[in-house]
Amino acid sequence: MIRVAITGASGLVGECLTRVLVDHPAAEVTYVGSRSSAGRDIADVVPSLKGQISLACRESDAKEIAAAADVAILAHKSAESLELTPKLLDAGVRVIDIGGEFRLKDPALYKRWYGQDHTATVLLAEAVYGLPELHREQIRTARLVANPGCYPTSVVLGLAPLLKAGLIQRDGIHIASSSGLTGAGRTGARAFIDVNEDMRPYALGGHKHVPEMEQELGAAAGGRVTVTFVPHLIPLNRGILSTMFARPARLADAAELHATLARAYAGEPFVRVREGGGDVCIANVRGTNFCDVAVDLSESTETVIVTSALDNMLKGAATQAIQNLNVMFGLDEATGIRGVRGS
Amino acid sequence: MIRVAITGASGLVGECLTRVLVDHPAAEVTYVGSRSSAGRDIADVVPSLKGQISLACRESDAKEIAAAADVAILAHKSAESLELTPKLLDAGVRVIDIGGEFRLKDPALYKRWYGQDHTATVLLAEAVYGLPELHREQIRTARLVANPGCYPTSVVLGLAPLLKAGLIQRDGIHIASSSGLTGAGRTGARAFIDVNEDMRPYALGGHKHVPEMEQELGAAAGGRVTVTFVPHLIPLNRGILSTMFARPARLADAAELHATLARAYAGEPFVRVREGGGDVCIANVRGTNFCDVAVDLSESTETVIVTSALDNMLKGAATQAIQNLNVMFGLDEATGIRGVRGS
Amino acid sequence: MIRVAITGASGLVGECLTRVLVDHPAAEVTYVGSRSSAGRDIADVVPSLKGQISLACRESDAKEIAAAADVAILAHKSAESLELTPKLLDAGVRVIDIGGEFRLKDPALYKRWYGQDHTATVLLAEAVYGLPELHREQIRTARLVANPGCYPTSVVLGLAPLLKAGLIQRDGIHIASSSGLTGAGRTGARAFIDVNEDMRPYALGGHKHVPEMEQELGAAAGGRVTVTFVPHLIPLNRGILSTMFARPARLADAAELHATLARAYAGEPFVRVREGGGDVCIANVRGTNFCDVAVDLSESTETVIVTSALDNMLKGAATQAIQNLNVMFGLDEATGIRGVRGS
Amino acid sequence: MIRVAITGASGLVGECLTRVLVDHPAAEVTYVGSRSSAGRDIADVVPSLKGQISLACRESDAKEIAAAADVAILAHKSAESLELTPKLLDAGVRVIDIGGEFRLKDPALYKRWYGQDHTATVLLAEAVYGLPELHREQIRTARLVANPGCYPTSVVLGLAPLLKAGLIQRDGIHIASSSGLTGAGRTGARAFIDVNEDMRPYALGGHKHVPEMEQELGAAAGGRVTVTFVPHLIPLNRGILSTMFARPARLADAAELHATLARAYAGEPFVRVREGGGDVCIANVRGTNFCDVAVDLSESTETVIVTSALDNMLKGAATQAIQNLNVMFGLDEATGIRGVRGS
Repeated sequence: MIRVAITGASGLVGECLTRVLVDHPAAEVTYVGSRSSAGRDIADVVPSLKGQISLACRESDAKEIAAAADVAILAHKSAESLELTPKLLDAGVRVIDIGGEFRLKDPALYKRWYGQDHTATVLLAEAVYGLPELHREQIRTARLVANPGCYPTSVVLGLAPLLKAGLIQRDGIHIASSSGLTGAGRTGARAFIDVNEDMRPYALGGHKHVPEMEQELGAAAGGRVTVTFVPHLIPLNRGILSTMFARPARLADAAELHATLARAYAGEPFVRVREGGGDVCIANVRGTNFCDVAVDLSESTETVIVTSALDNMLKGAATQAIQNLNVMFGLDEATGIRGVRGS
Repeated sequence: MIRVAITGASGLVGECLTRVLVDHPAAEVTYVGSRSSAGRDIADVVPSLKGQISLACRESDAKEIAAAADVAILAHKSAESLELTPKLLDAGVRVIDIGGEFRLKDPALYKRWYGQDHTATVLLAEAVYGLPELHREQIRTARLVANPGCYPTSVVLGLAPLLKAGLIQRDGIHIASSSGLTGAGRTGARAFIDVNEDMRPYALGGHKHVPEMEQELGAAAGGRVTVTFVPHLIPLNRGILSTMFARPARLADAAELHATLARAYAGEPFVRVREGGGDVCIANVRGTNFCDVAVDLSESTETVIVTSALDNMLKGAATQAIQNLNVMFGLDEATGIRGVRGS
Repeated sequence: MIRVAITGASGLVGECLTRVLVDHPAAEVTYVGSRSSAGRDIADVVPSLKGQISLACRESDAKEIAAAADVAILAHKSAESLELTPKLLDAGVRVIDIGGEFRLKDPALYKRWYGQDHTATVLLAEAVYGLPELHREQIRTARLVANPGCYPTSVVLGLAPLLKAGLIQRDGIHIASSSGLTGAGRTGARAFIDVNEDMRPYALGGHKHVPEMEQELGAAAGGRVTVTFVPHLIPLNRGILSTMFARPARLADAAELHATLARAYAGEPFVRVREGGGDVCIANVRGTNFCDVAVDLSESTETVIVTSALDNMLKGAATQAIQNLNVMFGLDEATGIRGVRGS
Repeated sequence: MIRVAITGASGLVGECLTRVLVDHPAAEVTYVGSRSSAGRDIADVVPSLKGQISLACRESDAKEIAAAADVAILAHKSAESLELTPKLLDAGVRVIDIGGEFRLKDPALYKRWYGQDHTATVLLAEAVYGLPELHREQIRTARLVANPGCYPTSVVLGLAPLLKAGLIQRDGIHIASSSGLTGAGRTGARAFIDVNEDMRPYALGGHKHVPEMEQELGAAAGGRVTVTFVPHLIPLNRGILSTMFARPARLADAAELHATLARAYAGEPFVRVREGGGDVCIANVRGTNFCDVAVDLSESTETVIVTSALDNMLKGAATQAIQNLNVMFGLDEATGIRGVRGS
C-alpha cells in the first residue's frame, strides 16, 4: 500500500481526498495534517468522516510526514507549501501540491498574481504541471507535481488540442466560466442567502488562474496565447462549466474541429469528447474525475465555441491529485477513481 | 381604472401579470383568457392567486375582450396572437404582445426562426418594439407593442449605448447568457433532478432571440451588427445574467465606457448602471423591474466586458409589459412596479 | 400619507419593509435607522434598493423619529427596542416591534428565553400581540404592537381554531417546522456550502418561540397548552412549513375539522384554508402575506395533522407588520400587500 | 469476482449501482437490463456512465441473467419482479429486490398498499428483509433479499432499539420525514420550477411505506406498533431526514436513551449514533452508505425525539443493496462502499 499524507486535511479538498482514498485499493491515508485542528481526530473535525477513518491531526511536520508516508498531497490553501515542500523532497517524500505555488514557471508572474515572492524558485524548473493528459510522461518520475487549478483544467483541456492543431487564433479568446461555491473552500465561504437564486461575475479585473491558462495554452500552441476570462459564481455546490469563444485560424468545419478533440483524447480515461450542441453539462461530471468537452461552430459569425465541464473538487482538485498519484506510482491511472458516486 | 385583459393567464407570465396588477393603483384585471382552463376560476387554476382575484377564465375571444378591456396583454406562447391581434386592434383594444410574433420587422427572419409564415405582416410596420429605454415616444401612442424577449432585453440594454457611441465593434461580439428555469414556462419545464446542481449550455446551433438582438443593436449602431450568443440553464427560478465580450472600436478607457452607459440611462427609472468589477448580479434585480448593467475593460487583452442582469419574468416579461402599459396610458412609468417584493 | 420610520433598515426585514412600502399608496418611508450604516444612503448599503429610495441612515434617535414619522417599525434584532420603545411612545410615535421584546406577557419567561431582564415591563400589559386574525380590535387602537414571530404565526394560525373549538387535546402536540435561511437574518447567515443540499434540525433543547406559541394557543384554548417543537433548516431562501400532530379531544371527522378552520378564517384576507392532502406548500405563499392552512385526519392512528405555510420574511415579519400598520391607521387591511410578486 | 446483473439499469438507482460497482474490488457488472433501452449501450442511455462501462442493455431475461450473473439486483420500479424473481431463483441466481414486492410478509397488506395481488406469495416467507443491522444472519444465506424502502430504513434504524428496550410507547409515534427529489425516480420526476424554493407534504392519506415500518418496528418491539407518517418533498437531490416524536414508556433520561442507541449500533459499520441536539443532518450522510441517528428528550413535555438521516439513493437503495451483496457473499460488509464521494 502506498502511504499517503494529506495536509490541510480539514478543508474541503482534504475531506474529498480522504473520502476517495478510503476505498482506494492500493493507497491509504497514514497522516493527516491540520494546523487548526492539531491533536484532534480528523473524524471529529470533519463529521462526515466519522466511521471511515480515525487519525489524529498533526501540525504537518516534514520529518513526521517522512516517517509516515511515501507521498504527501498538500491541500492547504496558503503559501505554507513553499516552506514545506523543499523539506519533504529532501526527506524523500514525493509531493503533489494542490495549491498554486508551483504551477507558474515564471516567478515574476507568481509574485504579481499571488502577491508575494516565491521562495523556492529552484524547484520551479523541476515541478511538473500535473495535467496527465498533457504531461503524463514527466509525471511518472516527478518528485514534485503541481496539481492544476480548477478553472485552468477546464479551459486547457478544452482549448489545447485546437491551438496545437492551429485551428483557432491565439488571441481574442473569450472565456465565461462558472463555478459552484465549493471553489472558494471553507474559508472563503459565502452566505447561503447571498448566493442562492443568484449568479454573479467576479474578478473582472483579472484572476490568478489566467497566467496558468496562458502558460499551458502557450506551450500547447507553441507561441504566446492570451485569454480574457470572466469567472462567475452559480448556486450549486460543485462543478465548473466553461464556455469559450475563439476565432478560427483557418477554414475548418465542425466535423474537423470535433475530430481534432476526439483524436487528442482517444484513449484518455478521464476526458470525454461529447457531440456538442449542449451535451456538456455539470450533471454528467459531478462526483467524477471526468472532464467533458465539446466544440461547436457558429457558421454565421465564424466563431468556434468550446464548452467543458468538470467537478471542481475532483478533476479540479482531489481526484486529479489521485490520478497523478496513480501515474507517479505506476498504477493503472483510474485505480480507485473510475467510479462515480454520490452525485 | 384602466381595464386589462390577460391571455395565457394560467401560464407563469400570466400569473406574474395578475399578481402585480392586483396592487396597481390605476389598472385592474377585468378579463382572463386561458384556453386550457376556460370556465374555471383563475384562482383555482393557479393556487397562489387564491384570495387575490376571482375571475372565470375565458377562451380569449376578441369581441369579449373588447367589451371588457381597454388593453390586452397577450401572454400565451403560441402564435395564436397572429390571429387574435388584428381582431383586437380592429375592435379598438390596444395590444401588448409578450410573445415574439411582432418583434422582428423582417417576416423572412420570422419564418426562419419561428418556423412558420407570418400572417399579419401588415402590422409589422406599425408594431413598436417595447423597450421604453429605446422607443418610449413611439410606445406612448402605439396601438400594438411587441414586448421584448428576456435575453434581448438584457443584451440590448447592455450594448446599445456603446454601439451607438461607436465605442465597440459591430462584429466579434460574444455573449454568454444564463437563465433560470422559469424562462421556458410551464410547458417547457424540466425535471428538478435533471437541472438542480447543474449548469448547461443549449441552443448552440442558434437561438431565435439572436435576430431580435441584431435588429435592435443594428438600429442603435446605425449599421449591421452580429452576435454569437450561447444561452445556459442555471439552477434557480428567476433571473438572467449576460456576460458580453466586445472589441473596442477606438481607444477608450474604462471611465469613458462607464460614462457612456451612465449618460445613456440618466433619468431612466429602471436601468441602473453599476460600477463594474462584479456589481451586477441576479440577486439585486430579482423580484424587480430593474435591469442592472456595468462595463469593464480588460486592458491586457483590449476587450470590453459588459454585464447585465434582470428578472426574466419581470423586466424580461411581465413588469416590462406593465411599464409599457404605463407609458401607453400616460401614467408615471413606475406606477405599481417601482417596488421590489418577494425576492 | 402615513409617515413610517424603519429601524434596522439595512437588515433583511428592513429591506423587505422598504421594498413593500415603496409601492404602498398610503404610507411612505421617511426615516431609516441603521446604527452600523449611519450617514450612508440606504440605497448604497442595500444595493437592491438603488433607484427606489434615497435616504441617509440615522442612528435611530427617538426625537428624530418623532419629528419625521407617525409610526416606527422596529426591525433590528437586538434588545435595543427595550430602550427605544418607551421613548418613542412618550414622543407620540406608535410602534410596531418586529423583534421579540414585547410578545411574552410574562417577564420571567422573557428572561429565561431571551437571556436578560426585561427593562420595560410596564409596557407588557399594554402591548398587543400583532396577529390581526386573533387580536384585530385591540390592534386598531394600540400604541405598541408586538409583531409575532415567524414560527408562532404559522403554528398559532394552524392550531388556535381547533383548540378553541375543543377538537384537539392541549398536550401531546408535536410540531416539525422548517424554515428557509433568511430566518436567521444577515448576521446569523450560514455558508452556502454548509446548508445547500442539506436539511437539519436545530434547537432541540428548546426554542424561544415555544413560550410565545404556548401563550397564544393557551389564550385561544382557555387553558394551558404545551407543544414539542423541532425547527429545521431547509435549503431555500424564504418560507416556513409547519407540520403539526395532535390527538383528538373528542370524536370529529375530517369534514368537521376542516369546517372549523374554514369558519374561523371566513372573511380573513390573508389566511387561506386549503383542502388538505398536500395542498399547503411554501410555493403558494412565497412572496405574499398569506398563511395557508389545512387539516387532515389519520383515522387509523386517530391523529389530527395540521399543516401551515407562510413566507417568513412577509407574513412572518415585514408584511404582517404592514398589515398591522393598515389596521392601526384605519386603512383597508390589504392595502399595498394583497399582491404577490417576485416569487 | 462476483458477477452482478442489474435490472432497471437506466433508472436513477440503476445508475447509482453501476457507478459504485465500477470501483468495487470483488464484484463486477456483467449484465444490464433495461426494457425501454434494450439494444442500446447503457453508457449511451445514461450519459454520466460513458467511460466507465460499456454493455448493451438487455430485456431482463431470467435465462440470460443466469448465464451471466451470480446475483441480480432488481432496480426497476414496477411489479415486474413478481414474475422475474421466481425464475431467477429457479435458475440459481440470488436476488436482491430493491422494489417493494417482497418486503411485506402479509400479502393482504401488499394488495392494499400496492394495489394488486401478490402472485409469488410462496416466496414471502423465504424473503429476508434486507436491513443488515436487524437481519444480518439471515441475509448471509438468503436466496432472496428484499432491500428496504428509503423512508423505512431511516425510521426503523432510529426507533427499533428504543422499542426493543421498552423505552418508548408503541403507539402515538409521529413522524415527519423529508426527502430529496430523487426519491420518486426518473419517471415520477417533478418540474424544477414547481419544487425549487418549495417544501410540501404529500401522501397525507397514507403512504405505502407505513406497513413496512410497522412490520419491522413491531418485530423489534415484540408487539403491534403504529405510526403516523407524513413525508415531505424538499428542494435537494438526495437525502432523507426523519424527525420522530414518541412518548416514553417508562422513566428514562437522555443519557439512557443515547446509550441504548449506542449499544445497539456498537460495531455497526454504517450506523453512526450522533450526540443529538442537531448533529444529524443530510450533509453528513450524502454520498455515503451511512445512516446517522440521535435521540433527544424534551423534558418539559416528556417527549422523546429521534432524528435520523441517510442518502435515499445509497443507504436508502443502491449501496444498501451492495451492503447486502457483501453480506450474502461473505465479503467484508464495507467492501467498496466505505468511502464517501461526490457529495
